[in-house]
Amino acid sequence: MTDYKQISKAVISRLPRYYRYLGELMEEGIERISSNELSARMKVTASQIRQDLNNFGGFGQQGYGYNVKYLYAEIARILGIDRQHNLIIIGAGNLGQAIANYTNFEKRGFIIKGMFDINPRLIGLVVRGAKIRGIDDLEQFIVENEVQIAALTIPKSKAPEIADRLVKAGIKAIWNFAHTDLSVPDDVVVENVHLSESLMRLSYRVCSMQDERERREKGQLS
Amino acid sequence: MTDYKQISKAVISRLPRYYRYLGELMEEGIERISSNELSARMKVTASQIRQDLNNFGGFGQQGYGYNVKYLYAEIARILGIDRQHNLIIIGAGNLGQAIANYTNFEKRGFIIKGMFDINPRLIGLVVRGAKIRGIDDLEQFIVENEVQIAALTIPKSKAPEIADRLVKAGIKAIWNFAHTDLSVPDDVVVENVHLSESLMRLSYRVCSMQDERERREKGQLS
Repeated sequence: MTDYKQISKAVISRLPRYYRYLGELMEEGIERISSNELSARMKVTASQIRQDLNNFGGFGQQGYGYNVKYLYAEIARILGIDRQHNLIIIGAGNLGQAIANYTNFEKRGFIIKGMFDINPRLIGLVVRGAKIRGIDDLEQFIVENEVQIAALTIPKSKAPEIADRLVKAGIKAIWNFAHTDLSVPDDVVVENVHLSESLMRLSYRVCSMQDERERREKGQLS
Repeated sequence: MTDYKQISKAVISRLPRYYRYLGELMEEGIERISSNELSARMKVTASQIRQDLNNFGGFGQQGYGYNVKYLYAEIARILGIDRQHNLIIIGAGNLGQAIANYTNFEKRGFIIKGMFDINPRLIGLVVRGAKIRGIDDLEQFIVENEVQIAALTIPKSKAPEIADRLVKAGIKAIWNFAHTDLSVPDDVVVENVHLSESLMRLSYRVCSMQDERERREKGQLS
C-alpha cells in the first residue's frame, strides 16, 4: 500500500488530473494503458507520467501498461475520496448553490449535509436535498452531523469570524472562497479558491501574449 | 518600466496576492511598508518578499520600505488590470451568475458585456446589467463588443464545441470552469478553475493530517 509520506507535494497536486483521465478511460471501457498513450491524451511527457505513477509501485509493467482500474482506486485512496466526507456550505448565494448542485462531488464521497446563511429569505429553502439554515444552529449541526469540511462562500468581511466558529466547533478543513487569508490552527486545513487571483493570472497571460505578438510584428523577436 | 519577459512564472503567480495585500494597506492609509512588516502580514519570509519585489526595481529603499501606491500600480500594470478587458460568461447557471455578481472584477477592469445560455427560461433575464442571450448570437456579439475573455461555466460535454466557436470568433482567453482540458491554438490562453480538483487536494490534506495524528498517537512519530 502506498504511504502518504512517500509522495511529494508536486505529485499530489497532479493526482486529481490523473484521476480524471483514468475515470474517462474507465468510462470508455479501456482496461490498460501505456505511458505513451496516456502521454498523448494528457499532453504530459511519458517520462513524467512514469515518474509520477512509479510512486504507486509496480503498476506499469513494461509492454503491458498500467491497470486503469487499479490505479484509479489507488489514487482515490491516496486522495481520500474512497471514503465519506461530510460537508456544509456557509453562504447560500449563487456560489454556494452552484457547489450544492455539483453532483460530481457526491460521487467522490463529499456529502453536503446542510447550508447556512444569514439571509431570512433563503433560510428554509432546500437546494438538492440540503436545507438552508440560520447561522445560529452552526455549532450544534456540525457536532450532530459529524461535519468535517466547511465550504466558505461568504464575503471577506465575515470570513474570519465564521472561520473561528467553525474551528471551535471541530471543523477539520475549510474550503475558502472568501477573498482573504484565514488564520487557523496548524491542524486545520485551508484550501483557497481565490477567483479574482485566477482572473488576474489570466489577464497577465493575455497581456504578455499580446506584448509578444506586438514585439514580433515590430521584428524585435525572431 | 518593468518588462513582461523579466519576471519568472513563480513570481507572477504570487503577484495577485501581493496586489491584494497592497490594496488592503492602501485602504488602511499606509503609504510605506518594510519587507519585515509585509512579511508579518503575509506570512511569507522577508527575504522572499525582497526577492520577489526586486523584480520591480529600486522600490525598496533600505530604511524607507516600499512605496505602497507605486508598487500597487506597477503590479496592476504587469498583471494587465490597469486596462479594460471585455468579458462574456457562457452558462448563466448559479456559477455564471455568481461570477456576474462579483463587483470586484469590474474594479479590476473586467467588464461583463453579456451572458449566454441555451435555457429559454434564462434568456432575456438581466444579471447586474448583463443580459442573458441565446447562444446563436455568440459570434456576432463577440465581434461587436470587442470581447477578449470568455468565462466557460457550462457542463464538460458542451465545453469543447463552445471553445471552438469562441476561438473562431476571435476570443483571446478562456476562463474555464468546465471539468475538462480544452484544446486551443497556442495564442489562446486557457486558465482552468477545476473545483473538484481543489476539493480533492483538500481531501488529501485532511486525510494526510489525520494519518499523521493517528501515527503520532501510536507513538510512531516523535
